[in-house]
Amino acid sequence: MVRVCREHVSLQEARKIILEAVREAGFPRIDRIPTQEGLGFVLAEDVLSRRNVPHYAASAVDGYALLAAETGGATPATVVRLPQDRFLWMNTGSPLPDWCDAVVMVEDTSLAENGDLLLSKALPPGANVRPVGEDVMKGQILARWGERVDPPLAALLLGAGVEEIPVYRRPKCLFLPTGDEICPIREWVATEEGPRGKVPETNSALLKGIFQEWGLDLEIHSVLPDAADLIREKLKEATQTYDLVLIGAGTAKGKRDHTAEVISAEGEILFRWVRMKPGRPALFGRVKDALVFGIPGFPMSAAVAAWSLVAPAVFSMSGIPVGEMETDALLRRSLGAFESLRCEMMLPHSSPPGMEEWLRVKAAELIGKKTFWILSSGASTMWSMHEADGFALLPAETAECPKGTGVTVWFRQPVPWSRRALFQGSDDPAFTRIVTPVRKKGADLAIRPVGSLGGLAALARGEGHLAACHLLDGKTGRYNDAFIEEFANGEPWVRVLLYYREQGFLVAKGNPRELSGIVDLVEKEIRIVNRQPGAGTRVLLDWFLQEAGLERSRVAGYTTQAMTHLDAASRVASGVVDAALGIRAAADAFSLDFVTMAWEPFELVIPEKHLEHPGVKAVLESIRDPEWRRQVEAAGGYRWPD
Amino acid sequence: MVRVCREHVSLQEARKIILEAVREAGFPRIDRIPTQEGLGFVLAEDVLSRRNVPHYAASAVDGYALLAAETGGATPATVVRLPQDRFLWMNTGSPLPDWCDAVVMVEDTSLAENGDLLLSKALPPGANVRPVGEDVMKGQILARWGERVDPPLAALLLGAGVEEIPVYRRPKCLFLPTGDEICPIREWVATEEGPRGKVPETNSALLKGIFQEWGLDLEIHSVLPDAADLIREKLKEATQTYDLVLIGAGTAKGKRDHTAEVISAEGEILFRWVRMKPGRPALFGRVKDALVFGIPGFPMSAAVAAWSLVAPAVFSMSGIPVGEMETDALLRRSLGAFESLRCEMMLPHSSPPGMEEWLRVKAAELIGKKTFWILSSGASTMWSMHEADGFALLPAETAECPKGTGVTVWFRQPVPWSRRALFQGSDDPAFTRIVTPVRKKGADLAIRPVGSLGGLAALARGEGHLAACHLLDGKTGRYNDAFIEEFANGEPWVRVLLYYREQGFLVAKGNPRELSGIVDLVEKEIRIVNRQPGAGTRVLLDWFLQEAGLERSRVAGYTTQAMTHLDAASRVASGVVDAALGIRAAADAFSLDFVTMAWEPFELVIPEKHLEHPGVKAVLESIRDPEWRRQVEAAGGYRWPD
Repeated sequence: MVRVCREHVSLQEARKIILEAVREAGFPRIDRIPTQEGLGFVLAEDVLSRRNVPHYAASAVDGYALLAAETGGATPATVVRLPQDRFLWMNTGSPLPDWCDAVVMVEDTSLAENGDLLLSKALPPGANVRPVGEDVMKGQILARWGERVDPPLAALLLGAGVEEIPVYRRPKCLFLPTGDEICPIREWVATEEGPRGKVPETNSALLKGIFQEWGLDLEIHSVLPDAADLIREKLKEATQTYDLVLIGAGTAKGKRDHTAEVISAEGEILFRWVRMKPGRPALFGRVKDALVFGIPGFPMSAAVAAWSLVAPAVFSMSGIPVGEMETDALLRRSLGAFESLRCEMMLPHSSPPGMEEWLRVKAAELIGKKTFWILSSGASTMWSMHEADGFALLPAETAECPKGTGVTVWFRQPVPWSRRALFQGSDDPAFTRIVTPVRKKGADLAIRPVGSLGGLAALARGEGHLAACHLLDGKTGRYNDAFIEEFANGEPWVRVLLYYREQGFLVAKGNPRELSGIVDLVEKEIRIVNRQPGAGTRVLLDWFLQEAGLERSRVAGYTTQAMTHLDAASRVASGVVDAALGIRAAADAFSLDFVTMAWEPFELVIPEKHLEHPGVKAVLESIRDPEWRRQVEAAGGYRWPD
Repeated sequence: MVRVCREHVSLQEARKIILEAVREAGFPRIDRIPTQEGLGFVLAEDVLSRRNVPHYAASAVDGYALLAAETGGATPATVVRLPQDRFLWMNTGSPLPDWCDAVVMVEDTSLAENGDLLLSKALPPGANVRPVGEDVMKGQILARWGERVDPPLAALLLGAGVEEIPVYRRPKCLFLPTGDEICPIREWVATEEGPRGKVPETNSALLKGIFQEWGLDLEIHSVLPDAADLIREKLKEATQTYDLVLIGAGTAKGKRDHTAEVISAEGEILFRWVRMKPGRPALFGRVKDALVFGIPGFPMSAAVAAWSLVAPAVFSMSGIPVGEMETDALLRRSLGAFESLRCEMMLPHSSPPGMEEWLRVKAAELIGKKTFWILSSGASTMWSMHEADGFALLPAETAECPKGTGVTVWFRQPVPWSRRALFQGSDDPAFTRIVTPVRKKGADLAIRPVGSLGGLAALARGEGHLAACHLLDGKTGRYNDAFIEEFANGEPWVRVLLYYREQGFLVAKGNPRELSGIVDLVEKEIRIVNRQPGAGTRVLLDWFLQEAGLERSRVAGYTTQAMTHLDAASRVASGVVDAALGIRAAADAFSLDFVTMAWEPFELVIPEKHLEHPGVKAVLESIRDPEWRRQVEAAGGYRWPD
């Protein structure tokens, strides 16, 4: 039923098919538009000047027109005097009188009492004169086929009297979101939590924004249900008006995925499945004179499909010679990247073989090296797309990447390399808010929550500038000392006691299982979610169990893991588990009840050699920032040290 | 009368004064706007999530929800069978039923005839399930103060139900062009040549375009005459509505320069004269709550004032923390540069001491080195602003730069380094049109007209990939042979006879001085413009004079120089001179009469080692391009070789 030309294509093959289809469909198409509206358009022909610019010999300065021959010998010491009929005042741009051949700048003159001109500078003929056609000569090429009209060119064309220019039309583009589960944004934001089983229609904002960054408009259709007939009808309609139609979702092989079927019924599919991750279910086809993409529904998939597939299509439909662009330049432009830089992986990474893999990366400079780590790889997550400094694309042949592997990263914003400190360590919601005061001081802080132990280990490996921990030593019952000593391994590390945090059990409102202490976990068969190994909170749980003489295996859910306090809290809030050990702030954020178990010191740890790092200095200064301290106090469950 | 705070400031001092004034005037100012309209705005506060995203446990794939424990042992060889009440179809995004804890992808299943599910894969609990808050947790920071709303963030905020965001207001900006000589564009393009003594109002298009590249709007006022009272009135009015007012021109010390006086009368001037070239007469002040710039009138001066002075003002008024940005990053953003690269000067350059100097540069890769040369440095010329690949800023302490000096260039477009050939040689209007067919073949050609001898000398120095010449040997009366042999110096150079060009005297319509041969120059005292030394046309004139036994000194205007044929033609057309030796195409372009003197061979010269350069290959292919050949034939005065 679905006729498909090519399946499981590489990005390069996909791009080739796209560019061929663009050409076959007769794009780019030529238009003549007023020069005044031409900004950003690509010229469809060479444009020649029909006039000289300037069109008369003009003074290039404010001063006096005169005959150069009459200025001979003038210096500040030997002033030359000209009578009033031998010079004439010129404003910049004034036409030079026929009998003059030079202009002296007003700064090099003074006027005598009788009105004579006193010259302190001799001039050659032509001095400070703009000859006819100095800028542009009649018949000269002003701009060439394929050049983009930028502000200087717009000014040049108008200055040369060019009223209209031949340009390539911009494609008219439409986005057709589909899916029974898709909730329009207006309804979505109007509800407290969002209707159950529905997901917000965020791809319209995402794609419209990406098009806007490209200087193009993307019209947005209302959300269509998963009904093949209706989608087909709308597609048919759309291809009569639009040059390019993006169908949102429905591109995979599920029961409600109709995009391929619909395109196939009205036209033809030119490729389906792209060997990249995410974005694999992208597809591309043609319906009459229009080109059609099936855009996968997850936001990261939609973004990479736009950047790597839709961009070459709309660029070349707009007359930009994409076929000739190097991949780096093309993707940099597609992504709206500020720059592309070669950086090193901070940690090893396994990439799926045979597929190009998109990475969301965050970067920091470590020991003079531009280093990056990879943020969450889920196609469905939007937070990491924003949190990322940039994006990278690993080639299909990449499999195991050891630490230090060099990768080109497209940065969407400049990274403040020398001013950004890297924090790895315990997750703490109040601490994450310190980034803003740090930035207000002109520095930056990247936070990578890896648990207390993970942070100390990272510091020891040189992967970062500071850490934080709250680690209870099971042998001594003391916090942090032994761990820091071990990892510092003789190097001088500075400790800063930031605050005490209230640790306890997060339980549903009203504490329905009546949890009051550690033994209840076993006796009342309370199901928990634990934290990852190396997290201080997990160490604390282990300590409580050890003190109470309880086996870990008797606690239901001991082996499940949440990566952050808020993650743990959200699982309690949703009822998946009964309880989790965590901080009060997390309970408060989810309106949970809280059973206090301990106040533990939360300490920053900084190798002495990093104390002068601008990011570290800004963190230490920000600890006294009143606004941040108010946020910490408002969060609840924090106590300042005496 | 004009109170001035600081004069002759460096760019860095100017920037400091600007940022202080921005702060003192209470910018940036906070606004709350709908998230849907937030693209490009800068957040004025941290934004926290008020919901979990997703807000229910959802299937991450199309497949069947089930209990992971019941899939144990399933492989393609040992299929596990589940009865119909132990699984449930899930679309991607469907809510997971309470009794399930995993989803198997449809690809890993098949259905038995009785409706049972056949599983070929065992799953751990949680497989293919998106937990509550997987993307964003309630209470988590979505985005921070100072971050720009880009498409991923817009989608994220909407997905997290954030309807409104606190952002920094964009400044309302107005451009007030002034000047008696300024002709509005509408009038300008309506005339054939432009009114004498008037210059077109191109800075509105230039500045509006630059603001548009920054994502900002610049409103344009109609042109004001040079009347201090009127400008003052309009400025006063404007500062009640606008945050930033740019006054066009009137910033120097001429009799009609009122900008400083007017700002001073209504407010205060914070600096005047900037130690850069061009752009020196820029000034900055404050009138009530508004900031005011005086923008010099020449286009290049206006552009650099916008890039280096106005940009930091409007960026920081919009909430972008400019103070913390490195100069390179700031200017790259101001210029809308695609990238900044360190390149080497192809030729030596003298920079004015004590001033930063802006360069318009064109670049090419020579022997693996990214090299650039400097285009015309006149502040008044627009053509070179468009022709430039990029811009550079030489520090104030720079004076003499030898060949090879390294300079950072901000490129506005990617340079096709490996595919661009550099041509230096004889100026020929028809040859310049070959660039477009070359580009259509995916290569590029940069043309630097330096005359026939200059081109051969450049080739010999390795500065370029091909040249062209038409050099008559005064000893033998033969063209090119001796010169090419001398410069090639034993290296194999390939010659391609492109065409014969008709050389002759360009004279006014009707040939009023009745010029018919070389002796008329002397006998009829005809005033000429010559070409620069090394130009083939000058060599030809010398040959004619030598053959006729005439002294060069007897020809009026022999020592004056035009750099191109069109330049020479335009001087004849404007009546400054009576005649010039040149090609017929130039006469035709200016509707001049033409007195044929010779047909000379125009030869391309290519060192053999460059024959495989993509740019050179494309030039050689383009010689047969029918469209280009039509253009050559239409130009007149060209004859193809037999």
